[in-house]
Amino acid sequence: MIELVPLPGMPEIRPGVVLAPLLVEAAAAAERPLRPGDCLVVTQKVVSKAEGRLVPLDPSDLDARRRLVEAESTRILRRRGDLIISETSHGFVCANAGVDLSNVDDGWAALLPVDGDRSARRIRDGIRAATGLEVAVVISDTFGRPWRNGLVDVAIGVAGLAAVVDLRGTEDDRGRALQVTEVAVADEVASAAELVMGKARGIPAALVRGLDAAWLRDSSIKELVRPPGEDLFR
Amino acid sequence: MIELVPLPGMPEIRPGVVLAPLLVEAAAAAERPLRPGDCLVVTQKVVSKAEGRLVPLDPSDLDARRRLVEAESTRILRRRGDLIISETSHGFVCANAGVDLSNVDDGWAALLPVDGDRSARRIRDGIRAATGLEVAVVISDTFGRPWRNGLVDVAIGVAGLAAVVDLRGTEDDRGRALQVTEVAVADEVASAAELVMGKARGIPAALVRGLDAAWLRDSSIKELVRPPGEDLFR
Repeated sequence: MIELVPLPGMPEIRPGVVLAPLLVEAAAAAERPLRPGDCLVVTQKVVSKAEGRLVPLDPSDLDARRRLVEAESTRILRRRGDLIISETSHGFVCANAGVDLSNVDDGWAALLPVDGDRSARRIRDGIRAATGLEVAVVISDTFGRPWRNGLVDVAIGVAGLAAVVDLRGTEDDRGRALQVTEVAVADEVASAAELVMGKARGIPAALVRGLDAAWLRDSSIKELVRPPGEDLFR
Repeated sequence: MIELVPLPGMPEIRPGVVLAPLLVEAAAAAERPLRPGDCLVVTQKVVSKAEGRLVPLDPSDLDARRRLVEAESTRILRRRGDLIISETSHGFVCANAGVDLSNVDDGWAALLPVDGDRSARRIRDGIRAATGLEVAVVISDTFGRPWRNGLVDVAIGVAGLAAVVDLRGTEDDRGRALQVTEVAVADEVASAAELVMGKARGIPAALVRGLDAAWLRDSSIKELVRPPGEDLFR
């Protein structure tokens, strides 16, 4: 059984704030004091704020916004009106290079963390230092997808959780090799956590308790980035 | 708080089996007797078996397999070796048109349900008839995505749960209109449920308890199918 527990009640995050102790407190306040093997999912927005990934941007200046998105992109895939689909330095393909104006102060935009894995490790290491507990951390963001309406949360950084679980060599219930071999566990965890966070409610983090212990290992978000040459969907 | 509860212990499903009472029993056996507002996630495989969506196929006959995939496709997008990415009659874009050989008897292939919404409604209506309870049902399947490695479970049929939740008109914590407006809730529910089912463990269903009551409404998987003309990612 897995529990998805929202962690509301974190204070407004300013640049330089250390997130780990706030998450430990938020879990305790939600009557789920952290345990080994727990996974914390933290939204990109609070991580970007804590890391000072904020730049001044007049929301009515669409040209300035376009230039900012282009500066955050390594490759532009599509444009329509004010919307740009591009690839970021991390290898993510998403709308507006992750540049986001909601839930930040007027006149500012939040950028993606420079290195989501490093952001996740910093939180994990901070929790270990404060409590001695080994937990997993996923940094999540909200992305669109081709072919399907609506957005889903995906992982943009991981620590202590497999980004992808490889089932190659595993057999189905008839003892034959499975056709489906790689499961994007970190993305599924991010999507699951979104169900208790919600865009409008502004809950910045969730606790996921009960993940398969076999998935708790060192990993990198790079496991989730498909090299263009191997991408049959492109 | 949301609970994700695996429902193991369902018998082998043969064509004509009625799933609703088996799911009611499986939930009770998992010590989670169904309650109003619960959501059952049922994998495509058992639904296809129950609905007799099985065709004979020699797994070593790659030509026959290719013809079957083509017959299940309305449009071929890409081919590489034995892998075909195509659009199905439902509007889904996926690998091999959902034709699947794992966890079925040797010499047979499972096809997608003809109408996933109808499959979901049949289960929901059966549970209502047997218990008087109003539950939501999601039929799930495992799809690949462009740009990101690994597969995730998505919804291919819904009953009683919003496929997409529209947050237009909702404000962020600063009182401004949200940039992210449509959340693919049914896909996130399918991905969350996958975390307790697992490909190799062969658990065919999960109970999701605690979804936002505002999401429980009549819906259709068509809300999730993006018309090609509106799809900037294509």
